[in-house]
Amino acid sequence: MYIAPLAALIQQFERMPGIGHKTAMRLAFHVLDKTEEDAKAFADAIINAKQSIHYCKVCQDLTDSDLCRICSSSKRDKNTICVVEGPKDVLAMEKTGEYDGLYHVLHGVISPMDGIGPEDIKAKELIGRIAQGDVTEIIMATNLTVEGEATSAYLAKLIKPLGVKVTRIARGMPVGGDLEYVDEITLTMALEGRREI
Amino acid sequence: MYIAPLAALIQQFERMPGIGHKTAMRLAFHVLDKTEEDAKAFADAIINAKQSIHYCKVCQDLTDSDLCRICSSSKRDKNTICVVEGPKDVLAMEKTGEYDGLYHVLHGVISPMDGIGPEDIKAKELIGRIAQGDVTEIIMATNLTVEGEATSAYLAKLIKPLGVKVTRIARGMPVGGDLEYVDEITLTMALEGRREI
Repeated sequence: MYIAPLAALIQQFERMPGIGHKTAMRLAFHVLDKTEEDAKAFADAIINAKQSIHYCKVCQDLTDSDLCRICSSSKRDKNTICVVEGPKDVLAMEKTGEYDGLYHVLHGVISPMDGIGPEDIKAKELIGRIAQGDVTEIIMATNLTVEGEATSAYLAKLIKPLGVKVTRIARGMPVGGDLEYVDEITLTMALEGRREI
Repeated sequence: MYIAPLAALIQQFERMPGIGHKTAMRLAFHVLDKTEEDAKAFADAIINAKQSIHYCKVCQDLTDSDLCRICSSSKRDKNTICVVEGPKDVLAMEKTGEYDGLYHVLHGVISPMDGIGPEDIKAKELIGRIAQGDVTEIIMATNLTVEGEATSAYLAKLIKPLGVKVTRIARGMPVGGDLEYVDEITLTMALEGRREI
C-alpha cells in the first residue's frame, strides 16, 4: 500500500517503544516534510549518538569520553556509590540535587524468569570498585520491584563481607499519595518505616 | 545535564509532532540500545525516504518513481479525479476500496489567515490536468473544515467554466454517530442531505 522507502521508514518508527502504526505514519510523514538538510541532521544525530556514546569505564553510565562527568568530577564524594538499574535512574537522582556521591549503573536487574543472572549485569564491575578500598557506603537504589529488590538483596549479600555499609532507599508513600488508593504493601512499608515527628 | 550527542538526539525527537520531552528521551535511549547495525539502518531509512520520495508529476502524490502507482495503473478510471489535501487522504480513500479513479493531491488548503493562497497549493497542476480534456468529474474531497470548504468552493468556481462536473463528498452523520453528541452543523447537514429509503 505504501511506496517502499516510506514503508521502510514507517517500520523503523514502529519498532520503537510506545509507537503504534498511526504515530509511526505521522512521524514518517514529518520526516518527508523536513528539508533534505534537516533529514540528514536527524540521521546524523542517530549515527553520532550510537557511535560516540559508550559506558564509563568506572561507573558504567553512558558517556562520550573515557570517564563520565560524575566520575571525573573533583566535587563528588568518592566514598559513596549509589547503585541504579539504568542511565535514566542516574538522571532522576541527579535531578534531586541531594546526592553528591558516585554512581554505579547495573544495566539491568537479576531476573531468573527472563534468564538474566548476575553475570549479565554490571555486578562484577561494582565488586571491583569496592575492592579498591575507598568506598564506605553503597546505596542500593534499584527499583522497588520484585527484580529490583532481589538484585539489591543479592548484591548486599556479596558486598557486606567486604566490610562496607549497604543501605536501601526508603520505602513509603509517594508525595501526593492518597492512602485510599495506594496498595497495601506500600502502606505496610510506610507504616513500618514511620518516624517520630 | 545530558552528554552532548544524547542531548542532540533527544532534541531531534522532540521536534517531531506529538513527541514531548519524556517520549523523546525514551526514543533516544532506545536508539542507544540498538546494535550499531540497526541504528545505521534507521538513519539510512530516513535519508533514503527523504531522497527517493518526491511528488508524482501528474497527481502530486508521493512516489519514488516518475509516475505514482495509481497514475500509471491501467485499471484506474482516467475520467474522474478525486481532489484531496494530502497524501494521507489518498491512503484513507484507497482503504475504502470503493474508488477506482485518479487523485490530485493539493498539499495544503487555501488559508488566508496563514498566508496560504491558491498559488501555494497544487491548484495550477489540477487545472492543467483538466485542460487536457479526459476528465469528466472532479470529486472534491478536501476536509470538512472552514479551509477545506473554502478551497473546495474556490476550485469548483475555477473548474466549472471548463465544462467538467464538480461534486463534493457527502456531509452527514458519521457511522456510530450519536445524535445527542453530534454538533448542530453536522446534524443540519445530515437533515438537508436526507434520502428516501
